[in-house]
Amino acid sequence: MPENPRRTLKLGAVLLGVGGPGQHHTWLDPQIPADASVDVRWYIARAQEAEAARFDHVFIVDSQYITPDSPHHYLSRLEPLTLLSAIAVHTEHIGLVATLTTSYSEPFDVARRLASLDHISGGRAGWNVVTSGDQGTAGNYSRDAHYDYATRYGRALEHVRVAQGLWDSYEPGALPRDREAGVFLDRSKLHALNHVGEHFRVAGPLNIERTPQGQPVIFQAGDSEEGRDLGAAVADAIFTHAANLEQAVAFRTELRERAAAKGRDPRHVLIVPGIHPIIGDTDEEAIARQAAVLGAKSFDKALAELGRPFGWHDFAQYDLDAPFPDVPSGESFRTQAEAVKRLAAEKGWTLRQVVEHQLAQGWSPFVGSPLTVADEIQRWFEAGGFDGINITVNSPADFARFTDQVLPILRERGVVRSEYESSTLRGNLGLPVPENRHTAALVP
Amino acid sequence: MPENPRRTLKLGAVLLGVGGPGQHHTWLDPQIPADASVDVRWYIARAQEAEAARFDHVFIVDSQYITPDSPHHYLSRLEPLTLLSAIAVHTEHIGLVATLTTSYSEPFDVARRLASLDHISGGRAGWNVVTSGDQGTAGNYSRDAHYDYATRYGRALEHVRVAQGLWDSYEPGALPRDREAGVFLDRSKLHALNHVGEHFRVAGPLNIERTPQGQPVIFQAGDSEEGRDLGAAVADAIFTHAANLEQAVAFRTELRERAAAKGRDPRHVLIVPGIHPIIGDTDEEAIARQAAVLGAKSFDKALAELGRPFGWHDFAQYDLDAPFPDVPSGESFRTQAEAVKRLAAEKGWTLRQVVEHQLAQGWSPFVGSPLTVADEIQRWFEAGGFDGINITVNSPADFARFTDQVLPILRERGVVRSEYESSTLRGNLGLPVPENRHTAALVP
Ligand SMILES: Cc1cc2nc3c(=O)[nH]c(=O)nc-3n(C[C@H](O)[C@H](O)[C@H](O)COP(=O)(O)O)c2cc1C
Ligand SMILES: Cc1cc2nc3c(=O)[nH]c(=O)nc-3n(C[C@H](O)[C@H](O)[C@H](O)COP(=O)(O)O)c2cc1C
Repeated sequence: MPENPRRTLKLGAVLLGVGGPGQHHTWLDPQIPADASVDVRWYIARAQEAEAARFDHVFIVDSQYITPDSPHHYLSRLEPLTLLSAIAVHTEHIGLVATLTTSYSEPFDVARRLASLDHISGGRAGWNVVTSGDQGTAGNYSRDAHYDYATRYGRALEHVRVAQGLWDSYEPGALPRDREAGVFLDRSKLHALNHVGEHFRVAGPLNIERTPQGQPVIFQAGDSEEGRDLGAAVADAIFTHAANLEQAVAFRTELRERAAAKGRDPRHVLIVPGIHPIIGDTDEEAIARQAAVLGAKSFDKALAELGRPFGWHDFAQYDLDAPFPDVPSGESFRTQAEAVKRLAAEKGWTLRQVVEHQLAQGWSPFVGSPLTVADEIQRWFEAGGFDGINITVNSPADFARFTDQVLPILRERGVVRSEYESSTLRGNLGLPVPENRHTAALVP
Repeated sequence: MPENPRRTLKLGAVLLGVGGPGQHHTWLDPQIPADASVDVRWYIARAQEAEAARFDHVFIVDSQYITPDSPHHYLSRLEPLTLLSAIAVHTEHIGLVATLTTSYSEPFDVARRLASLDHISGGRAGWNVVTSGDQGTAGNYSRDAHYDYATRYGRALEHVRVAQGLWDSYEPGALPRDREAGVFLDRSKLHALNHVGEHFRVAGPLNIERTPQGQPVIFQAGDSEEGRDLGAAVADAIFTHAANLEQAVAFRTELRERAAAKGRDPRHVLIVPGIHPIIGDTDEEAIARQAAVLGAKSFDKALAELGRPFGWHDFAQYDLDAPFPDVPSGESFRTQAEAVKRLAAEKGWTLRQVVEHQLAQGWSPFVGSPLTVADEIQRWFEAGGFDGINITVNSPADFARFTDQVLPILRERGVVRSEYESSTLRGNLGLPVPENRHTAALVP
């Protein structure tokens, strides 16, 4: 049983990306437009399907650095906030979470654009805070190198705090817009921020009023020590990976403890891993489908992609049958790079064996018939493995399998709710509206 | 007669802002929601009306610095690109022009977001390049002071050039997405930029493919020597003010000469001033309407707003009946500030007289019956005063007067066209699609 039995499992849908090995082939699927990653109608249709299934949110991942070896949906993709704004006005209930980096952006601009989306959507905006996985992003933003981890996460924390401060520029009621009295603004309720920090100096106030959610929902993604600390400090929800139940429970327990140690209520830090259900009519069929997806990926492609966590390091230069080369972890996805190196060292693998492992491992723990997958999700949820899941399937057909076959079972059992409970993302996720700091100061 | 008789007058609609004295009162108009500036539905409805009248584009002005004295629609407003993206998916033909500053943004981000809007809208995106009028913006972007004019415009030119370079990252045909051959990308047609300049270093390539327009349409606004030079160098269209026909012709002539001197075809640099028609059933009624709008503005409000071109300088500190104070023009809207000072010096006015002049001047040259206004627009157009106009009326009712009463006259006379001629903004404005630099290099 979850510690709060009234809580239900939260549901997000990642629209393209982070879908495991199969994602690299989605453009080959005749049911998906080959240019889906720049087709706003495709995204709108997916969001409407997720809304029809009463999902809490859709989720847009992002990157700002490509090489010719990048996955197809990285090569050409819509920018998250323009995309979500278009989706906002063709949906009514579903939350809209945009991945935006703190490493190559300014808090005034980010705070403003997210507040704008929150107004446009009537309170459905979310921000997935990342620090840019790809170190090459630096070269697109006038920098010689990516920030080191300490700077990157120091900047991230300050960035989010500034954005939060800016979102409080206008107290509730600061804009009476009283036509009879001729009063548009109550000057006493408009506040400058005057932030002076290590990375940013931001005077404020923000030029957009308090949003329907008070503040957009903050997600965070990044699993290192520094990343966890950021999440525990500022996130309403944490996007992560979950390889098995044991690791998931450990991660969630640890994050909640960290949040509590910072004086936060751990119930307001939701752990939401990406999960990739592979559903068949029977368990056997599902296992066969997973094997087919894994088998469709070429060795060379897997070798190229192995380079990504290492800053797109070129592994093709090494002898495949020599021990796994001693490549520096770099500043891109250090946590992932180190996991690969640790595994290779533990097993004493060659480069070829590492790539074959990446190709062959059954990467999803949620494979089987609808009943099997529903059971497994419920088991993880009740064991405290997660508070919600970000579904990362690769096709609308796979999404429909989940919504039409798995969700009814979970709904029947009371694990997920049947209707939206609120008009805002914050409300549906069961998160409190952060009180405006200037109002809060008045409360004894 | 215009030099090219086949050309018709281009039509833009500024949605909120730069509407002359009356704009400060729009929230008092019971026909307009008092919170229109954050109401996406209000904007969508306006854009749909403009589209029904076959306007070429809607235009969003912007700022990122407020004080309690800022006009009401500056205090709280939607961010231009999130707003236009929402409008994009509720319209089909109309162009969508976003004001974005080059002073406090990065070219990779701007290029990407505009390309995203161009894809989302199917080729209707435009960028109004500004350098940030309000010097206080600096304080929201970690800077002590606004850039001086030379730096500001140097940065602007480099910024636009980088964006244009990024938009050419993918040649046409670079993404065959050939399922049978299994070829998503033609690597030979994806190009890095490797820009190293004074203000920016940007490696590229951009992570979004060539857009339907090839490149979004570039507007530019800023009238100083430096501003004109920027416009002549990079703009497809120039947004400006037009106080009278003589000045308008001189400005247009000068800009076209500058563009020609830079080797450009002056027909591809459209001059598009903001104009504010005030229409009555009769000339007398229109003149009375203008007087009423002017009279509704308070002296104190006008005194506060006089400070804006001087960087929100506080003029209330001076003796109203002493000669106009010697305030530095500063780095905000220097061209405007200097015009005010020049006028005060020429006339020998006190501060009070300057404010009264601002309050009382008949600010629009387009006041009268529908026939009078249509005649005047045609006269300016045929005399070479402009290639298009950005209409800046303050209410949907005033907009309807223009579309329902003035436009039919101009259409009947062949001054404006009756139907969209293209599916893109570039096409409707009669502008060529810029050839991709990498393809162009192949042509002998
Ligand atoms: C589940 C997950 C999703 C992520 N999504 C993105 C993303 O969409 N864009 C991005 O630039 N970085 C993304 N990141 C990268 C992080 O922001 C971070 O830069 C990276 O994981 C390295 O930091 P770490 O070692 O703390 O994990 C993601 C990380 C995780 C764990
Ligand atoms: C017609 C016109 C419209 C403008 N619109 C904007 C705007 O929406 N946002 C902004 O920050 N600056 C705007 N500007 C300001 C310019 O970018 C520029 O910073 C300012 O005019 C001072 O430069 P200048 O002396 O070259 O005119 C506008 C200027 C003009 C002339």
